[in-house]
Amino acid sequence: MSREKWVAGRLGDKVVTQMHYARSGVVTEEMARVAEREGLSPELVRSEVARGRMAIPANIRHLNLDPIGIGIAARCKVNANIGSSQVRSGPAEEIEKLKLCLRYGADTVMDLSTGGDLIAIRSALLESCPVPFGTVPIYEAAARVENIEELSSGDMLGVIESQAQQGVDFMTIHCGVLLEFLPLVKNRLTGIVSRGGALMARWMLRHGLQNPLYAEFDSILDICRRYDVTVSLGDGLRPGCLHDATDAAQMAELKTLGRLAERAWAAEVQVMIEGPGHIPMNKIRENVEMEQFYCREAPFYTLGPVVTDIAPGYDHISSAIGAAIAGWHGVSLLCYVTPKEHLGLPGPEDVREGIVAYKIAAHAADVARGRPGARDRDDAISRARFEFDWEKQFELALDPEKARRYWAESSGAAVSSASGKPSAPEEAGSESRARREAPGSKEISSTNETPAAAGSPAQMGTPDGHEDFCSMCGPKFCPMRLSKQIRKMGEPGTGNPSGKGLAKGCAYSKKSLA
Amino acid sequence: MSREKWVAGRLGDKVVTQMHYARSGVVTEEMARVAEREGLSPELVRSEVARGRMAIPANIRHLNLDPIGIGIAARCKVNANIGSSQVRSGPAEEIEKLKLCLRYGADTVMDLSTGGDLIAIRSALLESCPVPFGTVPIYEAAARVENIEELSSGDMLGVIESQAQQGVDFMTIHCGVLLEFLPLVKNRLTGIVSRGGALMARWMLRHGLQNPLYAEFDSILDICRRYDVTVSLGDGLRPGCLHDATDAAQMAELKTLGRLAERAWAAEVQVMIEGPGHIPMNKIRENVEMEQFYCREAPFYTLGPVVTDIAPGYDHISSAIGAAIAGWHGVSLLCYVTPKEHLGLPGPEDVREGIVAYKIAAHAADVARGRPGARDRDDAISRARFEFDWEKQFELALDPEKARRYWAESSGAAVSSASGKPSAPEEAGSESRARREAPGSKEISSTNETPAAAGSPAQMGTPDGHEDFCSMCGPKFCPMRLSKQIRKMGEPGTGNPSGKGLAKGCAYSKKSLA
Repeated sequence: MSREKWVAGRLGDKVVTQMHYARSGVVTEEMARVAEREGLSPELVRSEVARGRMAIPANIRHLNLDPIGIGIAARCKVNANIGSSQVRSGPAEEIEKLKLCLRYGADTVMDLSTGGDLIAIRSALLESCPVPFGTVPIYEAAARVENIEELSSGDMLGVIESQAQQGVDFMTIHCGVLLEFLPLVKNRLTGIVSRGGALMARWMLRHGLQNPLYAEFDSILDICRRYDVTVSLGDGLRPGCLHDATDAAQMAELKTLGRLAERAWAAEVQVMIEGPGHIPMNKIRENVEMEQFYCREAPFYTLGPVVTDIAPGYDHISSAIGAAIAGWHGVSLLCYVTPKEHLGLPGPEDVREGIVAYKIAAHAADVARGRPGARDRDDAISRARFEFDWEKQFELALDPEKARRYWAESSGAAVSSASGKPSAPEEAGSESRARREAPGSKEISSTNETPAAAGSPAQMGTPDGHEDFCSMCGPKFCPMRLSKQIRKMGEPGTGNPSGKGLAKGCAYSKKSLA
Repeated sequence: MSREKWVAGRLGDKVVTQMHYARSGVVTEEMARVAEREGLSPELVRSEVARGRMAIPANIRHLNLDPIGIGIAARCKVNANIGSSQVRSGPAEEIEKLKLCLRYGADTVMDLSTGGDLIAIRSALLESCPVPFGTVPIYEAAARVENIEELSSGDMLGVIESQAQQGVDFMTIHCGVLLEFLPLVKNRLTGIVSRGGALMARWMLRHGLQNPLYAEFDSILDICRRYDVTVSLGDGLRPGCLHDATDAAQMAELKTLGRLAERAWAAEVQVMIEGPGHIPMNKIRENVEMEQFYCREAPFYTLGPVVTDIAPGYDHISSAIGAAIAGWHGVSLLCYVTPKEHLGLPGPEDVREGIVAYKIAAHAADVARGRPGARDRDDAISRARFEFDWEKQFELALDPEKARRYWAESSGAAVSSASGKPSAPEEAGSESRARREAPGSKEISSTNETPAAAGSPAQMGTPDGHEDFCSMCGPKFCPMRLSKQIRKMGEPGTGNPSGKGLAKGCAYSKKSLA
């Protein structure tokens, strides 16, 4: 990476945003890199950034960044939230989560820490973070005081500036929660469910004054221009359940965000718009279209949405359904939801599950949008599947480790059931090593009669060869195996002893199946 | 249950199907029960069954059945497949899976066993099965011989009749895979992926004759009339990957199934139509509408569909996305897919994950369809969430155990992190007992310094009280907690020391937030 060189020549400029350069007709190195990663022309990327329909969150101080484009012209992206909370915090665990984010393909990461040494956690994370890095500055501001109302707008701006100096690429700013909108939540079942939104509401009610992030929006833009921080206009009044979806409070805020987006663009600051949250399936498209209308197609960044509220423990699934539909209809960045949503702070395993669920949603969206080449990976894995090339399937899978483990476990069990004696799952390569090194693995494997290493190479569980069935159907009932036999039957000199079907003039012919 | 009495009076009838009685103007006890469960009028149920738009799979020999209705007028339903394979089988595990199916709310269960003593497994399962029970008779037929082509059509009919006698409520019959359609799969990436479809294709090519299940369709219907077996017209040519979706082979079969459905209805036999499989999101609605058109709105029963092929290990998620969209647009029965799909035979934990993913999809579909009352449970859990009534949330959750466990684990971890010493997750009630009794749990818990039982009642992890935050945000950043404080501020005599916002004539007033 040579981003240090990229930004070196810009440091004297008063405005250093990608939008500024795009509007000046300049294709920056960041735009060129995005074009390369997306298979788009650099000029298209430039024009999308100039128009505000694509954001390239890239703080000029985030030098280890490999930039990405977020917008309808680009692939649908996935954001993963990590971060400590006040009752649970630890920098080591956050670094571990960040590594998982990168490993499983999160396109952006937000550090939502609210507990522990926030600046140190952020600094450590940024150092290891090649993807756009986002924060919610009001969390740090609030963490410094007992009650949010003790903060002045100057305090808030100070935190925004210091985070910009640290190199944060995009910041959620809850400036659309206006004092006059607060009565609109009174008929809601779940009130305000955005942490930032609730904090700002409390501040306003205590002071009887307008939202300071709204009042000081120009000052915020001034900071963003100097570091190229992309403003992610927060949806502090997003609905927290299906009942509250698409209500007056949400709509009032959305229209405000649209006006703020125009002000940001006038200042050449990049913008994204945040959206809900909880929406029934039949209202998702409408929500996306309203954002496109009111916010002039600024990149839409939704949290899920979950499509039913009855699945705590599985909200990565209930929200991946909504996210996939949202991405299909034009959402550019999908903020993941983990299985722990509504229950507790996600741990590393939850981060993994959440990211993979969202990679599925984003990819399915790209396929449904008809994005050129989007289906190539699907076709490649399908080919490998038909060829029983297990290793290739694992390689092309979103989570190769888990796919390999599941396959090996089942195959191992199949063999053990056939031989009548128990055998540990056979695993290959790095996965096997990783499991053996995992804490507690000794205790677990010692309870098996046969150690994992004892699996014979003749076992079905060995993924190195091309075993032509799996434990789901077994060899006799494997349809793909049968399909191949059927194809062979169609070849000259093989199969079909009667040939009657072929002779009777039906559409089938030997050649056609070859 | 008194189904024995219900059917007693019908035993002399030549045709005993629900469709027969519905067309005769009779509201059977089964229809009345379905009406009760669905909140529909008995007359509506009768007319839907008469028209073939609703099926009530209810073999007159399945006496412990509590009947359900499958069709667009009813709630969207979930089917769970269980069953042994030839490389992995065991009746005890299948019974365990059945119990999980019932516990997590599968509406129907299919026994797809292909290995072990099939008749004994089926008999044991049926005895414990109050939900409609389905099979694929060709599996049993094929298991009896070395190669499928050794079977005569008489052999196949014999198996169908013997399974009907056992009390099977619905059977997948692959009678739409015609000899002349086989060349249509030649350009596919994954050929034929239906086990039944591939078996019939092999039979046809070996003999050069038409599909015997098609040729003998009238004989099959004759059996079904006498026991009221619902024919589930199998999609033997369903696509096995996105590339092959909605191709000529699939379409040719679908149209054939439509013609077969009309023949079944003419014989007063109930019908469902099976569908794919693998479909990109943007083609799902079209697929549902084509089924409705060609098959005259016979209940559509889809497997997923998965919306991307790149997620082995997570296909319960990739397919729940497709299933939710399919259900929304009119699919009546969603056949689950487990995380092991494409990798191996599902075990009990996979069954659980698959069912819950599909309960999410089916419920989200009911909500999106605007079904009266569908959102009640969502609203109730949202209310409980806002009230921090954790116990009520768990109770209303699709998987109360997992929700409780996740909450308690995070809360326990929060406490342990705060106190500086590790503590085992606090679990309550049956879940805790279940975990302690699980094999290997001794070894695992012995590695913890503090046994699970030692959690103090003062811990945040105790789910009995109404703790007003969770470890995700912690108390200070909990938006719902803040929302409540904000509401209180709006009450007369509390909060808002300045009252300035209220005085300035903005839309907010003390009353409006109360």
